[in-house]
Amino acid sequence: MADYIEPRVLKGFRDFLPQAEMIRRDLSEKIENCFRSFGFSPIDTPALEYADILLGKGGGETEKQIYRFKDKGERDVALRFDLTVPFARFTALHREELVFPFKRYHIGKVWRGENTQRGRYREFTQCDFDIIGSDSAAADFEILLLIRTALLSLGLDVTIRFNHRGLFNNFLSHIGQREKSVEVLRAVDKLAKVGADETRKTLTELAGEANAQKILDFISANRTLGSGSFTETLARMTELSGGASPESQRLAQLRQYMNDAVGCDDTFILDPSITRGLDYYTGVVFETFLNELPDIGSICSGGRYDNLAGLYSKDKDAISGVGSSIGLDRLIAALESLGKLPASKGCALAIACVNIEHSGRYQALAQKFRQSGVPCEVHSEGDGKQLVKQYVLAEKKGLRWVLVPGENPHDPVTLRDLAARKNRELSVEQAIDAIRKE
Amino acid sequence: MADYIEPRVLKGFRDFLPQAEMIRRDLSEKIENCFRSFGFSPIDTPALEYADILLGKGGGETEKQIYRFKDKGERDVALRFDLTVPFARFTALHREELVFPFKRYHIGKVWRGENTQRGRYREFTQCDFDIIGSDSAAADFEILLLIRTALLSLGLDVTIRFNHRGLFNNFLSHIGQREKSVEVLRAVDKLAKVGADETRKTLTELAGEANAQKILDFISANRTLGSGSFTETLARMTELSGGASPESQRLAQLRQYMNDAVGCDDTFILDPSITRGLDYYTGVVFETFLNELPDIGSICSGGRYDNLAGLYSKDKDAISGVGSSIGLDRLIAALESLGKLPASKGCALAIACVNIEHSGRYQALAQKFRQSGVPCEVHSEGDGKQLVKQYVLAEKKGLRWVLVPGENPHDPVTLRDLAARKNRELSVEQAIDAIRKE
Repeated sequence: MADYIEPRVLKGFRDFLPQAEMIRRDLSEKIENCFRSFGFSPIDTPALEYADILLGKGGGETEKQIYRFKDKGERDVALRFDLTVPFARFTALHREELVFPFKRYHIGKVWRGENTQRGRYREFTQCDFDIIGSDSAAADFEILLLIRTALLSLGLDVTIRFNHRGLFNNFLSHIGQREKSVEVLRAVDKLAKVGADETRKTLTELAGEANAQKILDFISANRTLGSGSFTETLARMTELSGGASPESQRLAQLRQYMNDAVGCDDTFILDPSITRGLDYYTGVVFETFLNELPDIGSICSGGRYDNLAGLYSKDKDAISGVGSSIGLDRLIAALESLGKLPASKGCALAIACVNIEHSGRYQALAQKFRQSGVPCEVHSEGDGKQLVKQYVLAEKKGLRWVLVPGENPHDPVTLRDLAARKNRELSVEQAIDAIRKE
Repeated sequence: MADYIEPRVLKGFRDFLPQAEMIRRDLSEKIENCFRSFGFSPIDTPALEYADILLGKGGGETEKQIYRFKDKGERDVALRFDLTVPFARFTALHREELVFPFKRYHIGKVWRGENTQRGRYREFTQCDFDIIGSDSAAADFEILLLIRTALLSLGLDVTIRFNHRGLFNNFLSHIGQREKSVEVLRAVDKLAKVGADETRKTLTELAGEANAQKILDFISANRTLGSGSFTETLARMTELSGGASPESQRLAQLRQYMNDAVGCDDTFILDPSITRGLDYYTGVVFETFLNELPDIGSICSGGRYDNLAGLYSKDKDAISGVGSSIGLDRLIAALESLGKLPASKGCALAIACVNIEHSGRYQALAQKFRQSGVPCEVHSEGDGKQLVKQYVLAEKKGLRWVLVPGENPHDPVTLRDLAARKNRELSVEQAIDAIRKE
């Protein structure tokens, strides 16, 4: 006879307790500040949309994973499974209200009924950022630089491997395999996951043994020859793809930008084996790896696309763009294993309750700290006889200081340093200074 | 033969364009900073939960409004319709991991299939904050002070009307109507909405004419006698409820705290007609009104409850608490009509593109501004011949400045003030200073 409901969360969903949520919010704020410093603006879209909009041409994995249902008005609705499709719909709908080139970011939750056995979550946070309405190489570069800057601001050194799908397609045309582009690019994208032998097998089935070899030569152009420098790699790719083209020129232009902007450090590597699995990319594509933790794979990928909102637009010019996405969960996992999770900006000080009658005065005291930029909580229970109990409580909460107020408003206060287990008698102003200094 | 999907959003759902979303995020950040300054910690819970958990004992309005469906694993799931029920479930589930008293805030979206004709949204954001695990009057007061401080930080003067449900119930006991408490409190809660006549009618049906009159006398104790001061009002309420009680003492204690902490300004008013509609409140209850815009009703309400997690707990002591909730949408609407929406902290500066070959250098220049705390975007298209076009673009985006780089890296730059329509020739350092000063 259970007269209570067993508390539980759905498989693949998570509660975030204070410590974890504080980290998530602080991290997300840091990334957001970086987006803003580049002049990117935030947008938001509904969690729930018409299913036909989210599914688009539909089919495949998406259809299997999406949370879809009929609402009370019998509408066929679904939870968004990424931020890209809603952005395409958003752009088509608000085209006249937006100023192009439009630089936006979007941080939000998405939902997928993933197989949780693969360690995937069914609710997770994405941070997307794009520049749309510009086909310029300068826009490509800005996205690459933004990735580098955002991750550096978190203390992470990264390597961004980039390529140009158009140049890859030029090469496929050159060897007469252009019509197999989608399959070939997908097969190459899986190289790191399935290994060289499996990839050769797939490519051979697709294009024959000789062409498979040519494709393998092309995608290893940065590893097989000379120093593997950008110049050598691009020269080889250009040659294999039938000579100079707008696509090879764009890669050269990007290299020039990288050199001018950041002195061409080792962040950016031209890698012809980067292709990205998604079909809609048409230009530059890239993946980002942590130098200290390359094995977790790309933590921020993206590329250039020709026609963002085409599926939702009538009689309109295509809107091209370039964008990328950071998976917050993977990023946090990475920072955690590197011991680089940022220290929380949370509260470090509590005012002890010596006499519950004086709690109003304690709040007035706390306001002095808060107004000086020092977060401060106030204990709502306790008395002066059992201060140790209040120290223990504050320590359990991860605080650093407890301030014990005097008997009268203008008496000095006692500042307890929980880490050093030492007390100091100070004026309120001295206590504020002491804490701000640390 | 439509070969495109009509872009649209579900009724009651909204896209947020850059300007609106920037405001929402900045506002939410300000409120969040205030929560943190009081030592409150953030938590998060899933958007989707088991339906039986969200519906609890079920029934009524909730059941009609909730988005509920079967997921692909045939689980009966639903989108959260508030942040209170998930918090109760969260507290029961993580009881052993939390340190009490526990002060938490939770800012998140909730979903209700409301009737949109009443101007309601089906997706909206709530900001909840609670102190649980303390029955202290000091905790009650902290929540009241936090409401005042948070709204003051947004430039809003408020009046917080508070009452004590326990004292109201003492009064009902005194007149022999305690068993009708739920219905009476609900009827009184609707007073402002339905008017005095309708309320008298309902109360008469519930308790008879004489008792209805007594109830009306009680709830106007602050308006019918003398100055309506706190002391007079409390004395009258105490008398009508049969004499001094722990509940009347708590109100007196709160008044003492208000006096000690904020010099008893006019923020806090004891108002016996405040009862709140929700059944679970047992102690202090309150509503918050904007002094400049009282007619929009309470923008932040709440109260004390005896047993937060009881529905999800087996063999456990009750966890009491006190909490409140700000509706972000109503708050924004209010700020908007008062002309008090905070100015956006967005980007105000763009670097013009004079020569697309130099875009790498422009980014290096932009990094200098960004590193000095000045957000800066870089135009990815254009040339030096059509600078006016770039000025117009920047103005459309709401920027204040355009910086036109020199031909060579160390040349002076031209800073265009779009508002004043004036150019100045400056060094980069001078330009940074000029913008930071404004």
